[in-house]
Amino acid sequence: MEKIVTDICIIGAGPVGLFAVFEAGLLKMRCHLVDALPQIGGQLSEIYPQKPIYDIPGYPEVKAQDLVDRLMEQIAPFHPTFTLGERVDSVEKQTDGSFIVTTNEKTEITCQVIVIAGGLGCFEPRKPEIEHLEEFEGKGVVYMVKNPELFRDRRIVLAGGGDSALDWTLFLSNVAKEVTLVHRGETFRGAPDSAEKVFELAHQGKINLLLKSNVVAINGNGHLNTVSISGKDNAITTLTADHLIPLFGLTPKLGPIADWGLTIDKSAISVNTEDYSTNVERIYAIGDINTYPGKLKLILCGFHEAALMAQSAFKYVYPNQKLSFKYTTVNGVNAF
Amino acid sequence: MEKIVTDICIIGAGPVGLFAVFEAGLLKMRCHLVDALPQIGGQLSEIYPQKPIYDIPGYPEVKAQDLVDRLMEQIAPFHPTFTLGERVDSVEKQTDGSFIVTTNEKTEITCQVIVIAGGLGCFEPRKPEIEHLEEFEGKGVVYMVKNPELFRDRRIVLAGGGDSALDWTLFLSNVAKEVTLVHRGETFRGAPDSAEKVFELAHQGKINLLLKSNVVAINGNGHLNTVSISGKDNAITTLTADHLIPLFGLTPKLGPIADWGLTIDKSAISVNTEDYSTNVERIYAIGDINTYPGKLKLILCGFHEAALMAQSAFKYVYPNQKLSFKYTTVNGVNAF
Ligand SMILES: Cc1cc2nc3c(=O)[nH]c(=O)nc-3n(C[C@H](O)[C@H](O)[C@H](O)COP(=O)(O)OP(=O)(O)OC[C@H]3O[C@@H](n4cnc5c(N)ncnc54)[C@H](O)[C@@H]3O)c2cc1C
Ligand SMILES: Cc1cc2nc3c(=O)[nH]c(=O)nc-3n(C[C@H](O)[C@H](O)[C@H](O)COP(=O)(O)OP(=O)(O)OC[C@H]3O[C@@H](n4cnc5c(N)ncnc54)[C@H](O)[C@@H]3O)c2cc1C
Repeated sequence: MEKIVTDICIIGAGPVGLFAVFEAGLLKMRCHLVDALPQIGGQLSEIYPQKPIYDIPGYPEVKAQDLVDRLMEQIAPFHPTFTLGERVDSVEKQTDGSFIVTTNEKTEITCQVIVIAGGLGCFEPRKPEIEHLEEFEGKGVVYMVKNPELFRDRRIVLAGGGDSALDWTLFLSNVAKEVTLVHRGETFRGAPDSAEKVFELAHQGKINLLLKSNVVAINGNGHLNTVSISGKDNAITTLTADHLIPLFGLTPKLGPIADWGLTIDKSAISVNTEDYSTNVERIYAIGDINTYPGKLKLILCGFHEAALMAQSAFKYVYPNQKLSFKYTTVNGVNAF
Repeated sequence: MEKIVTDICIIGAGPVGLFAVFEAGLLKMRCHLVDALPQIGGQLSEIYPQKPIYDIPGYPEVKAQDLVDRLMEQIAPFHPTFTLGERVDSVEKQTDGSFIVTTNEKTEITCQVIVIAGGLGCFEPRKPEIEHLEEFEGKGVVYMVKNPELFRDRRIVLAGGGDSALDWTLFLSNVAKEVTLVHRGETFRGAPDSAEKVFELAHQGKINLLLKSNVVAINGNGHLNTVSISGKDNAITTLTADHLIPLFGLTPKLGPIADWGLTIDKSAISVNTEDYSTNVERIYAIGDINTYPGKLKLILCGFHEAALMAQSAFKYVYPNQKLSFKYTTVNGVNAF
């Protein structure tokens, strides 16, 4: 139950939320960012970190993760603070106009302005269809590995065929007591190199690898205890397991944002293009999460939106000061 | 009287005009750019090429000229063509909706769409107050050196105290028959290094250097013949000269753009933020030259405007095609 006080709370640490720190910083406004993912970078780091982007102005080509790294370098002078791996669930306006923003882990951020840079929404895990799955969430079933130490000396079943499934199988094989990887196919979608290592570990008997298999049932008494898997010949194997980690990718959902009284149009927040403000005073929405006539879901558009937002937000953070517009070339970047 | 046919004629080759080539190119639209300056880059190359900019997203710091170079690299796959050193004077709509754009040197560009990326306007030379100056323009008086060969074996008087005056004095000292530099001060505003070289040439008798001096009169019969200079003790010296080159910097003027029937608001063109279109169909205005509620004269804002413009301009270039929006990461940059 951490409590944080800042000028601007930015929901979403994708490229647009990150650049907003810079534009706010030029105007001496401090920012705290919250992201549901355990890492910064939004879609770029989660979905396509190693892919090149060609339409960032001035970059004929830049890898998505490199862009995120450069943005972090650019905002470093303004010392943004972060709460990662927590989802913002509620937003409450105080009588003095400020807000209290609360996450699913009860972290509270008090701020003058909220900037929603939530992209396509919170990345939520794609869940396999298994009966009673939800009952065991937090009681053995997890969809994201935040702290691998929690799995030390435990019996783990992982399910999936992509990079996350391969990488965590490799990593946990050194930590857990027993690791089983269940995959419905025979080949993996992830890096060939990782796949090869997984096959090698299975060959050495260090992990169980069940191909052409699916998790079909889970059981336990208050906590997960067994996982049943249907294999090639439809035979069912039941393993004792402390944890099931289904890794079928993440898919973004607008989630709690839909309940904050904002005008929503086709899963996006309607904004005024003069300053990218929403219908609720002191709440702005920038990047993929907003919509307006002509909107393009492009990174470079979010950067522009961040600049105009900051000019407008200034009046709430410094109600008694006059804003004067200055070029960075002339004025520099004055850290604080 | 060159004649060019293209899809989009971009007026102004500053950073925003350049990036517009990229956004148009992604949609298979060809561009021709016209700029009144002899080089590309707009304010960045003309006013502050060596200064750092800090607010280009993803660039913690970039020199203005380096940004221009990177933009040129980024648009190279789309083979833009250029007319430099010519000012667009008129724009004429044809019955079929297309335009003929004409420069002061009668170059004619036929295009489907016009994008005005004219910044603060045409850079016009700051003129000294000398009687009959305008009479001798083009007849010995020039404000910009486009082709130094025109000065070979001529007697030249340069006036000014900045980098252009120093640089052209140094350069022309190897080309012209006689070079005189007139400067009202005793020290120079330009690079100390160049100033030192100029003092050295004067010391060696290779150029005439007249400090604390001003050009006060010019004479000739149809073409410039003499330049009179008032010196330290108000004594007047009259030199025989074929050319006077006053180099007191350039200052931007909206110029002919004001006469094209566009809605102008405080020296800028009013646009619709949905696509940055003006009140005249098929004419768009992006970058410093436009205005709308919330407008910031920032490079990064012009980039966003270019992207939305291109989506909208597509329908005029390809009236029978449906536009589909694709990410560069997914689709690549397909040159043509
Ligand atoms: C494969 C692919 C290729 C692409 N290629 C390009 C390209 O070439 N050029 C281009 O410009 N764009 C491209 N895009 C789009 C680009 O990635 C997005 O425009 C960009 O990521 C938007 O940035 P953002 O900061 O607005 O949101 P995001 O990057 O989506 O980040 C939003 C963040 O907000 C978080 N969040 C949401 N709700 C909450 C909440 N309630 N609490 C806490 N956190 C929350 C999410 O977890 C997420 O991390 C591509 C996208 C994909 C998927
Ligand atoms: C000292 C200084 C520092 C700055 N620092 C920053 C900064 O840190 N960050 C930032 O974002 N911005 C900064 N700027 C502003 C930035 O330079 C402008 O926003 C940018 O140049 C605008 O780009 P543009 O392409 O719209 O126009 P410009 O760069 O002005 O280019 C317009 C071009 O159009 C041409 N043109 C105009 N009319 C005609 C015509 N009729 N025919 C032919 N050609 C024509 C002009 O010759 C010119 O070359 C700074 C500006 C200055 C002067």
